[in-house]
Amino acid sequence: MPDVTPGPVAVDTMGGDHGPGAVVAGAVAAARADGARLILVGDGPTIHDLLAEHGASGEVPIAHADETLSMEEGALASRRKPRSSIAICCRLIRSGQAAAMVSAGTTAGVVATARLRLRGQHGVMRPAIAVTLPTRPRPTVLLDAGATTDAKPEMLVQFAALGTAYAQVAFGVAAPRVGLLTIGVEPGKGNKVTRRAHEMLAAIPVDFAGNIEGDDLLTGGVDVIVTDGFTGNVALKSMEGAVRLAVAEMRTAMTATPAAKIGALLQRKRLRELAERLDSETYGGGVLLGLNGTVVIAHGGSNARAITSACALARDLSAGQIVERIRERVAVARLPRFGRRGHGDQPELVFGE
Amino acid sequence: MPDVTPGPVAVDTMGGDHGPGAVVAGAVAAARADGARLILVGDGPTIHDLLAEHGASGEVPIAHADETLSMEEGALASRRKPRSSIAICCRLIRSGQAAAMVSAGTTAGVVATARLRLRGQHGVMRPAIAVTLPTRPRPTVLLDAGATTDAKPEMLVQFAALGTAYAQVAFGVAAPRVGLLTIGVEPGKGNKVTRRAHEMLAAIPVDFAGNIEGDDLLTGGVDVIVTDGFTGNVALKSMEGAVRLAVAEMRTAMTATPAAKIGALLQRKRLRELAERLDSETYGGGVLLGLNGTVVIAHGGSNARAITSACALARDLSAGQIVERIRERVAVARLPRFGRRGHGDQPELVFGE
Repeated sequence: MPDVTPGPVAVDTMGGDHGPGAVVAGAVAAARADGARLILVGDGPTIHDLLAEHGASGEVPIAHADETLSMEEGALASRRKPRSSIAICCRLIRSGQAAAMVSAGTTAGVVATARLRLRGQHGVMRPAIAVTLPTRPRPTVLLDAGATTDAKPEMLVQFAALGTAYAQVAFGVAAPRVGLLTIGVEPGKGNKVTRRAHEMLAAIPVDFAGNIEGDDLLTGGVDVIVTDGFTGNVALKSMEGAVRLAVAEMRTAMTATPAAKIGALLQRKRLRELAERLDSETYGGGVLLGLNGTVVIAHGGSNARAITSACALARDLSAGQIVERIRERVAVARLPRFGRRGHGDQPELVFGE
Repeated sequence: MPDVTPGPVAVDTMGGDHGPGAVVAGAVAAARADGARLILVGDGPTIHDLLAEHGASGEVPIAHADETLSMEEGALASRRKPRSSIAICCRLIRSGQAAAMVSAGTTAGVVATARLRLRGQHGVMRPAIAVTLPTRPRPTVLLDAGATTDAKPEMLVQFAALGTAYAQVAFGVAAPRVGLLTIGVEPGKGNKVTRRAHEMLAAIPVDFAGNIEGDDLLTGGVDVIVTDGFTGNVALKSMEGAVRLAVAEMRTAMTATPAAKIGALLQRKRLRELAERLDSETYGGGVLLGLNGTVVIAHGGSNARAITSACALARDLSAGQIVERIRERVAVARLPRFGRRGHGDQPELVFGE
């Protein structure tokens, strides 16, 4: 599929732990190095001054936003603040002035605002946050990382379609293999939702590799891992906590001989890097899929380099027409009429248009 | 509460990866070192010969079992094999000849057989597997690790009572603090089941510390962590997988100088130990709570030393009258009449007798 020239990426400068300075620095680098077309959204005078600092006045257009969603504000604020920087980013997408957006704001705030203002794309029941796990030889997409906490089996099946489209566009995997996160590898294992989802996934045209367990998340055995937002979020944070404990364990081992300490320091460095990779590539850093527009949620702690990467990802996803690819995949994942078994609030199990 | 002299512990010699030899060796050590009263259950002649090898003929009584649940057999086999070694252990408890049991058989097989043959203790809706997380300064109890995959909020509330009793008896914690595993620390966060469970836990007499997230599992902030068996199992396996990846990362760093290698080796050793600790103390090693009898599920890979520990734990739990403590705690956790909100298949939300 040939990439199209994508529209600009709206960049929320008000989110993130490091303030507008880091976001603008990262955006300017993306505009200059990658030639990404951007719109900087936030407090106009602040952005103006920051651009001047980089000698980039006039290089990147600015869209002023009166309000900010603070890190403490959750989902409710998205209704109360129609002129927040995140809401303005969504408005630029709705009006066709932007093709995608990047925000390092709180995940809850970005998800709630984007759901409200971009709305779900046709045929998709619920959105999902796709995160990238640092597996080898190539990365694994896990979704949902927290957007839809009470997912029905039909939604998990759609997540398989969303994740397949994402792995194709973001990583160029021709036929992504999809695993279902559950407990026990046999088809009959799991809870009610995953048992039903397993049956459904086996009946639609995705490359379904079957059940996978928590200890398979980082082994790279599949390209896409499907789970509900509650389980996905718990699993991701559990992995982060375990690696953080491993780093702490290393610290207590630092009483060895000076010669040994050199090795120990090298090892700790590697572990810390692993912890950071798990942290920044997973929870809090992801792509919200299934809405009428591409939303890249950068990690709250993103530095300028991470913002540059997020801008490039947003540009690449809209160049790869991720929203259109999802529409096609969800239509392909249209299920045969299953007997109802007490799941789903949809009148029938027909996905797509 | 004064401990009572406990009845014997029935030990299933047919489960586990290392065969009856490791189990009998561990049991003999428990009988000799700790003075634990045991009954060895399994193939009579085999046990007889193994006892003779240890010069322990006649020291430990034997109960013959015709059948074995193999590692491949799951829940269904528990019905088909009423004379499996696990079933005979349960029968000894039912008849009062044993106070507790230990098995290194498959978790699915042990849980299914014990649920069928010991049945749930009065007032407890569903059993839960309690596992011990290697936290500091003292261990944390997590339940459920996989017995009840579709738990209603009322069941999570009961798990808080089960876990509180367990932390008191097993670790001597006077007033265990209980955390609810969910996503987001604020009361309104989580999925439907955990939001409702949060409300209920706040209304009953347990020391409820509120929500905890996946990355808090190993920080030792609470004494008891409550979750459903699906989420608990995924979280535990996710942590194991993450630590295993950390160990693998270390391996790729082993190309440093010889001096550095010494430190690296020390570090790897520590990490491997952490991985083993997470593995053996968590999934596959746990205590099945809520039935009419104490069931210690030893890890499938248990060596003789692990079996000795499991026998000591079973003895200690029955000495501490864990079943009676659970009955008391569940009665105390009797809920005020909540408005129903579509959860629960019980006629009303009154626990206990």
